[in-house]
Amino acid sequence: MKYKILTISREFGSGGRSIGRAVAERLGIPFYDRELVNKVALETGFTQEYIAEAGEYAHVKSRLAFLFSVGHAEHMQGHTAPAEYIWATQSRVIKSLAEQGPCVIVGRCADYILKEREDAFHVFIHAPKEARAERIVRLYGEKTEKPIKRLDEKDSKRKVHYNHFTGSTWGLSQNYNLSLDSEALGIDKCVDIIVSAMKGE
Amino acid sequence: MKYKILTISREFGSGGRSIGRAVAERLGIPFYDRELVNKVALETGFTQEYIAEAGEYAHVKSRLAFLFSVGHAEHMQGHTAPAEYIWATQSRVIKSLAEQGPCVIVGRCADYILKEREDAFHVFIHAPKEARAERIVRLYGEKTEKPIKRLDEKDSKRKVHYNHFTGSTWGLSQNYNLSLDSEALGIDKCVDIIVSAMKGE
Repeated sequence: MKYKILTISREFGSGGRSIGRAVAERLGIPFYDRELVNKVALETGFTQEYIAEAGEYAHVKSRLAFLFSVGHAEHMQGHTAPAEYIWATQSRVIKSLAEQGPCVIVGRCADYILKEREDAFHVFIHAPKEARAERIVRLYGEKTEKPIKRLDEKDSKRKVHYNHFTGSTWGLSQNYNLSLDSEALGIDKCVDIIVSAMKGE
Repeated sequence: MKYKILTISREFGSGGRSIGRAVAERLGIPFYDRELVNKVALETGFTQEYIAEAGEYAHVKSRLAFLFSVGHAEHMQGHTAPAEYIWATQSRVIKSLAEQGPCVIVGRCADYILKEREDAFHVFIHAPKEARAERIVRLYGEKTEKPIKRLDEKDSKRKVHYNHFTGSTWGLSQNYNLSLDSEALGIDKCVDIIVSAMKGE
């Protein structure tokens, strides 16, 4: 393969996770999503639910929600804020996973964390808001009343989180080797393009 | 074909123009670059040289450069500034070209001007600065001393121009159906991906 590591960043509801899983299956390499959350939870002492949320939206998490989700606060030695502590641990876990061999990593600013690796290929998946709203209602069982509002909230939080920790702009083409509109291209076509690019065909 | 119109936006030196020309040849459809400049020059009365520059960098053009390049100032009826006048004419010309049939249009915020057309496919081509510097020295005969400085100037001017006229951020993935790193993928691979996407294969 031309590239060994694939990072996928995505807008909520764009199908980025499904695309990542399909690429991992086609290439026969591990897919890290939930496993990554679990590793970070284990290392930090926070609950898995808190890490799943805070690992991508930390900067806008309320203090109250944080207090209710702390497991073992003694792990936070030397760190002034939980968001920074989680960021440091998550960065270490992501770098360690990439060291272990070929894999697909979804979300969590992995593009930024692994940007110095020449064997890493970085993809951003997005889609028009209407298409994503239809998708989250259909696949995730989101309430049908206000899916657009939910998308706006999720997008906004991911954006703030990414910009805070990387100093760059979330979704900027130049941060990725490939950015795909999953609605215009179709999920299967996105998978084909990424697999082919990873193989260097 | 799934899409009839292709717009290509690009970072200076990324090979976007070459990719656009190759796609047009493969699909057997017109490629508008210099022809577009000539049409706008003819309609506005400005020189071709001025339009080539001002159509993408207008907002940062000096007043002096403008005064030296005016052909027939009487064309500017009702417009308070040359940049806005050129923008309006260029938008009209681009919409008219798209109406005439399948084509490839490079630069000039065509992605934004044609964003309502469902038969238009929008691509952004970029590459790391070092790769672009090497390319402009090799292909365009740019002076070897300060290619990075020249890239920074060009990028900065395109960005300001795009942001001014569209109200959006230049290079943001969400403004395009596809964004490609021509260095990571290679020029030929970029052409293949775009042709395949246009055909809906």
